[in-house]
Amino acid sequence: MSTADTLGGIGESATLARIFPRLPAASHQLLGPGDDAAVVSAPDGRFVVTTDMMIHGPDFRLAWSSPFDLGWKAAASNLADVAAMGAVPTALVVAIAAPEHTAVSVLEGIADGLREGCEFLAPGCGVVGGDLSASNTLTITVTAFGDLEGRAPVLRSGARPGDTIAVAGALGEAAAGLRLLFEQGTLDGEPNAAAAAPLRERYPELVGAQLAPRPPIGHGRLAAIAGATAMLDLSDGLALDARRVARASGVALNLDSVLVGSREALDGGEDHSLLACFPPQATLPEGFRPLGVVTAGGGVLVDGTEYESLGGWDPYAGWNGGVG
Amino acid sequence: MSTADTLGGIGESATLARIFPRLPAASHQLLGPGDDAAVVSAPDGRFVVTTDMMIHGPDFRLAWSSPFDLGWKAAASNLADVAAMGAVPTALVVAIAAPEHTAVSVLEGIADGLREGCEFLAPGCGVVGGDLSASNTLTITVTAFGDLEGRAPVLRSGARPGDTIAVAGALGEAAAGLRLLFEQGTLDGEPNAAAAAPLRERYPELVGAQLAPRPPIGHGRLAAIAGATAMLDLSDGLALDARRVARASGVALNLDSVLVGSREALDGGEDHSLLACFPPQATLPEGFRPLGVVTAGGGVLVDGTEYESLGGWDPYAGWNGGVG
Repeated sequence: MSTADTLGGIGESATLARIFPRLPAASHQLLGPGDDAAVVSAPDGRFVVTTDMMIHGPDFRLAWSSPFDLGWKAAASNLADVAAMGAVPTALVVAIAAPEHTAVSVLEGIADGLREGCEFLAPGCGVVGGDLSASNTLTITVTAFGDLEGRAPVLRSGARPGDTIAVAGALGEAAAGLRLLFEQGTLDGEPNAAAAAPLRERYPELVGAQLAPRPPIGHGRLAAIAGATAMLDLSDGLALDARRVARASGVALNLDSVLVGSREALDGGEDHSLLACFPPQATLPEGFRPLGVVTAGGGVLVDGTEYESLGGWDPYAGWNGGVG
Repeated sequence: MSTADTLGGIGESATLARIFPRLPAASHQLLGPGDDAAVVSAPDGRFVVTTDMMIHGPDFRLAWSSPFDLGWKAAASNLADVAAMGAVPTALVVAIAAPEHTAVSVLEGIADGLREGCEFLAPGCGVVGGDLSASNTLTITVTAFGDLEGRAPVLRSGARPGDTIAVAGALGEAAAGLRLLFEQGTLDGEPNAAAAAPLRERYPELVGAQLAPRPPIGHGRLAAIAGATAMLDLSDGLALDARRVARASGVALNLDSVLVGSREALDGGEDHSLLACFPPQATLPEGFRPLGVVTAGGGVLVDGTEYESLGGWDPYAGWNGGVG
């Protein structure tokens, strides 16, 4: 590859000129990229904000994730945090740090993933600004904004005994996809693109859930309108995240093992599905299915028995510094 | 150092518990850290947003910058971008990625720098959320928000012939400080803490301007109220950033060499001072001093002659991957 095709070869300005046209426009944008800062509309006088980094090594392997996947997942995981407040995502800012030898096409692919991720998951949400830096470690930081449309945010702390526990989106698929990649997508113990390619063809749902997840972003707003008492984004697994709701709300979450399904559904992380609690009399909004009932007490129960697993199967927990 | 004192040793939750009490509170915060996202007030139905990364290696050396400096500078550089729109900074979100062997005290120092930087530069602005990740490269991404208080944002594109060019804040000090560090703060060509320490004592203004700058954040609002037609944050040097105003506005900026001072004042970057243009009849707000006059034409002139230097002396331009 010629240096004319790398970030270091063409420099920041030329790289940005190739990326900007690929980025999604935000309908809430009042002033976009190109000045010291952007200006975004906040119609009800408030905005929701969340930020999340994706780091080469602990968070993704380039042998498995395409640049498009990285952009898509960086959007999806942040959009899910906005949705979990009951808000509608309005805009993103994206800061990317990459080694100087990085091909410009990698940045273009990330931009394409951001665009198509926003268009598919949160139409109208776009990129209003960002930053491009040099680093030895490819790093993507997305900060996402949302509009509560005049509603109160849905916190983790509002669940009450008697509430129905429900979820929108997959459970355990992202973890199953990651397990497949670790078990069959490696060569000599290292992440390997050739070994991973057939997995994506054979198990598109599971591997796709890991590499380019499709959380139900629009359902966050629906849950808020339906009166959700508590909600969060399932990033670390149902059991572990349900425990967070239980702790914040001062209640117990009693899950029904038949409704939950598998052990992987209980413990697998990174689905970015929406876990919500609804008052007993509420009709669950479209896309939500029941998982159990909130009770007095504390922690997470399965079929009435305390669930002890730490949950959140995480193959990077003992991350050894390899980046793959 | 025992692993009990490192990020990897005590883990994310315990680290966050030690950082949170050190972070500055934001008066515009409606919901702070601890849920999926924060909620921030945007009184006039809009918010200003900017994001900027600081990367170990190209952007700072740990031999020269203390953790406190890093937090301070990460706040200052982003606050200056908000101020350059004529806005009042309201809140930050901060995403930090650090190697697992990083001492927790480093994170505490960064938090202290963020807090004292906000308190000194933009009282009332605070940290409303963030993210903590593992990475091989210490990386700090700050996203900053501001309130335009009902005014139009001050863009780069509004300068008109006859306008007075003015600046608030230092010119060339940060570059002079960096030059001192590169010339005298090294040992065997590598950044060295012991060699740098006496420089900070002997040249506190210059070295401080580089490591923990004090841009005139509150003057952005004053400039907007005084009718500034264009404004930006001087991050890449007066000449280079003035050229940006000239290009965006379709005018020439004619600088007076006596008013500017030294060559370093023209070309040195990272001052984060505010360059603004004001209508001829306007009284310059407190803290701004004149540098020259906007004329018809294009580019940057010094005493009426086109200034050819690319400007923005940047010792990292040929960054070799060393982190120091």
